[in-house]
Amino acid sequence: MDYQERLAALRRRMEERGVDLVYLTRGANLFYLAGVRRHYDHGTDHNAYGDWASGAFIAREGGLILLAPQMGGGFWVAEGQDKPWMDAVRLIPENASPGEEMRKAIGELSRTVQHVAVDQRTWGQTILAFNEFLPDVRLSLASDLITPMRMIKDADEIAAMRRASEMADAVYTRSLPILKPGVTEFEVAREIDYQFQQAGAEGTSFETGVVFVRAGGAARQGAVRATAQRQLQPGDSVTFDFGCVLDGYCSDFGRSAFVGEPSAEYRRVHDLVLTAQAEAIKAMKAGTITATELNTVARKVIADGGYDAGFTHRLGHGIGVTVHEPPFLDVVNQTVLQENMLFTIEPSVRVPGHFGNRVEDVVLVTPQGGVSLNHAPHTLTIVA
Amino acid sequence: MDYQERLAALRRRMEERGVDLVYLTRGANLFYLAGVRRHYDHGTDHNAYGDWASGAFIAREGGLILLAPQMGGGFWVAEGQDKPWMDAVRLIPENASPGEEMRKAIGELSRTVQHVAVDQRTWGQTILAFNEFLPDVRLSLASDLITPMRMIKDADEIAAMRRASEMADAVYTRSLPILKPGVTEFEVAREIDYQFQQAGAEGTSFETGVVFVRAGGAARQGAVRATAQRQLQPGDSVTFDFGCVLDGYCSDFGRSAFVGEPSAEYRRVHDLVLTAQAEAIKAMKAGTITATELNTVARKVIADGGYDAGFTHRLGHGIGVTVHEPPFLDVVNQTVLQENMLFTIEPSVRVPGHFGNRVEDVVLVTPQGGVSLNHAPHTLTIVA
Repeated sequence: MDYQERLAALRRRMEERGVDLVYLTRGANLFYLAGVRRHYDHGTDHNAYGDWASGAFIAREGGLILLAPQMGGGFWVAEGQDKPWMDAVRLIPENASPGEEMRKAIGELSRTVQHVAVDQRTWGQTILAFNEFLPDVRLSLASDLITPMRMIKDADEIAAMRRASEMADAVYTRSLPILKPGVTEFEVAREIDYQFQQAGAEGTSFETGVVFVRAGGAARQGAVRATAQRQLQPGDSVTFDFGCVLDGYCSDFGRSAFVGEPSAEYRRVHDLVLTAQAEAIKAMKAGTITATELNTVARKVIADGGYDAGFTHRLGHGIGVTVHEPPFLDVVNQTVLQENMLFTIEPSVRVPGHFGNRVEDVVLVTPQGGVSLNHAPHTLTIVA
Repeated sequence: MDYQERLAALRRRMEERGVDLVYLTRGANLFYLAGVRRHYDHGTDHNAYGDWASGAFIAREGGLILLAPQMGGGFWVAEGQDKPWMDAVRLIPENASPGEEMRKAIGELSRTVQHVAVDQRTWGQTILAFNEFLPDVRLSLASDLITPMRMIKDADEIAAMRRASEMADAVYTRSLPILKPGVTEFEVAREIDYQFQQAGAEGTSFETGVVFVRAGGAARQGAVRATAQRQLQPGDSVTFDFGCVLDGYCSDFGRSAFVGEPSAEYRRVHDLVLTAQAEAIKAMKAGTITATELNTVARKVIADGGYDAGFTHRLGHGIGVTVHEPPFLDVVNQTVLQENMLFTIEPSVRVPGHFGNRVEDVVLVTPQGGVSLNHAPHTLTIVA
């Protein structure tokens, strides 16, 4: 990934908008711009002394300082290695004032700071500190500068997304044998996570979703929470929704299965979902359609088939260093699709207490229409 | 848990400090005060329309409104059920302005808002919105109000912490049989996570840490990142660091093992670590010692034994609804230990490229000294 060019592009945008300094937390934007890896999962808050002051300070005229708590600081020091676009990694010892360390870093980078662009998820505590020691500074969102950059993927990114998607395809194939009557949602999800680990994924891009829908069963809240101990039975439909992170980029994948012989209605719904996806993919010609228009293309297929109420969510979302990122294929987004944008296309029909069906691919926008990065067959998996 | 009393206590504190409104994100404080469960793991950002405006708005004079994105809103609606201390759960549809929904919720709750206390981890984007539509409002940190409450645990909380600690004890015992030459760090961590799941934990309180330290091996960065495929061998020392979340409360647990016959030095270090822990636990008499003094008690034992440089971190931390919470047992914290505070006591000695040894218990402060909530033996586990 060409981080130096990304940082140069950011600085050109800072120049245009009169932004003196960008402050980024450890997260997607910092990974995208400077290759500082995120840390994936903590079950609960992992408070460390000075954590609220940690992050990257990027000056318009050049200069990038990473500031980090001493506890866990080894991670930051390692991430600063071999990155000529970084000037320093500073650790905050437990006997120093985090605010003072922040002020020092900023002072070194910029003589006058009038406008700071901050990460969307900057901690409130950090913003209050900015307000205190830079009282007249203007604050705006760094995402205004960075999101437009992240929406269009370069060749390296598309290659990484292709690898992550192919890993999801392979993990699906490898995990399917566990899908037998008697298995639980949890066991299937655990198998998928294990296969991702064995394949070398950094982690999952979100919590692996495996849902069994039972005809006549109680409605379930939400699609993703694979902890149920319910066992798979004949007549159940199964929806999959999972993805991995590989080289910092995400996949997001969906397919459906059925135990035993599905009803004619279920077959029809499965075909409807596939048709909605195919129609949407066909329409993804660069420069010809907006995000919300694309959402409508797929929704119309499902509505015409009589299942509008069963399609309860947006058609999809941008995907890259985070699993859900702009543009969103929803009812309001007016972004015109451009070449080398990547979206999930994930129509579904869920009739609580009856059945569920979904499909999801990651799709690249090209002048000729969408090209799926997933190659696992869309056919309904029948569990004998 | 007596959420109504907790909210009443919060409102008394708001009154004292002239805070009109508290804004909390979905997180530890909101769970502590109102029983709204957190959502545990997402590998990457899970952006939803209006997410930055979501959270709880708590008025001083009474009134609590939850605001949430429509996508995933089912979770919030469910969390609002059967909680008489909540007035409304509002979802933000994709065609509404999140800022406008926020403004409406605040307007309903309070006629005049001059001082808002916000969660430490409130998103920067949310703070900028507050600044925009309440330009003259004073912002402060809600943690100033809530942290002192959370530091002292009530009987329900201590009972929950006891259950979570006993689950960690049991999972350690159940997982030990997998520790045989040839097993990888990843496989051991996976077994621990599986045992927690089977035991009914909500999740892990942080990423399960299993580290093999090889005499003559390369130094490893950081203690927690159990993805290594290295296989256990005779002469390796093993350190465990893990915990679960049960009923929203955390455990955090540590023990050590050795493959084959440990050297006299390793045995001596193991005894030193146990002595440091025991001395600290003995000193945890309510009202008699500060956090930093306690840190020194344990450090002195290890320094006197000649391994000061191998004890690279603070002695421990408060623990409750999050795994690391104030007060911290570090070099600066002047908090006097009080009855019904809970801390981890976790001395360690790590000599990179030689060995590692650690122990960790969750310990309750009483007038007579500390009482450990963990009962798994502290003896060194020897793997044959």
